[in-house]
Amino acid sequence: MDANEIQTLDLSKIRWDAHGLVPAIVQDVETREVLMLAYMNEESLRRTLLEGKACYYSRSRQSLWLKGETSGHFQEIVDIKFDCDQDALLLTVKQIGMACHENYFSCFHYDLTSEGFKGIGEPEVRPEPTLGRT
Amino acid sequence: MDANEIQTLDLSKIRWDAHGLVPAIVQDVETREVLMLAYMNEESLRRTLLEGKACYYSRSRQSLWLKGETSGHFQEIVDIKFDCDQDALLLTVKQIGMACHENYFSCFHYDLTSEGFKGIGEPEVRPEPTLGRT
Repeated sequence: MDANEIQTLDLSKIRWDAHGLVPAIVQDVETREVLMLAYMNEESLRRTLLEGKACYYSRSRQSLWLKGETSGHFQEIVDIKFDCDQDALLLTVKQIGMACHENYFSCFHYDLTSEGFKGIGEPEVRPEPTLGRT
Repeated sequence: MDANEIQTLDLSKIRWDAHGLVPAIVQDVETREVLMLAYMNEESLRRTLLEGKACYYSRSRQSLWLKGETSGHFQEIVDIKFDCDQDALLLTVKQIGMACHENYFSCFHYDLTSEGFKGIGEPEVRPEPTLGRT
């Protein structure tokens, strides 16, 4: 898909919610772990397609959020799927470094037990990814 | 977790949205495929814990939805995780039959390409699961 195709791609079939967002599940291509759930608006989806790296819409900051821009923990896009209701995305990515800001590969590191939330495992110690900047 | 523990389990840490819902990603334990994205309210989460089968809140029907109740395509719960923001769930399940009402194992059977949506693969033909009813 070239830049022109991406800009003109008809995304009207997606059932954007009242805020113009759609939830995006993110799964690592190698481990098959589910890494996180984020949200995209139309602009962030087009930018994701254009750059090949996951870009979301941050609901808390109310702005585009290129995952990894400050940490180097980018998510390289392998493919993007939609579900039968067209109201959810599934991104298959190659996760660079870790997805979770708490230093876990996946954000889903809490179990629901009879005692409520329980952390699973220990934070990972991995070398910092090299930022592709000069 | 017994029934009493489930009824009294403190779920207030979950960041339910303005409609009292939280998105739940569903992943098959064997294939590791992401099957669907659904929504839960507190009642459906307690029922899921109680019965060991995934029960959601249907936003279109505005009622509880025991997945598989009419089709037999139940989702047996293996575990339930939360993310670091406590605003998303990840259910690991054993999928009986198929998750998708369009006869695919996963609901995510559309690819985003320069031509828009493109179906992936063919519907599966699997024997109907046996309903545990007499």
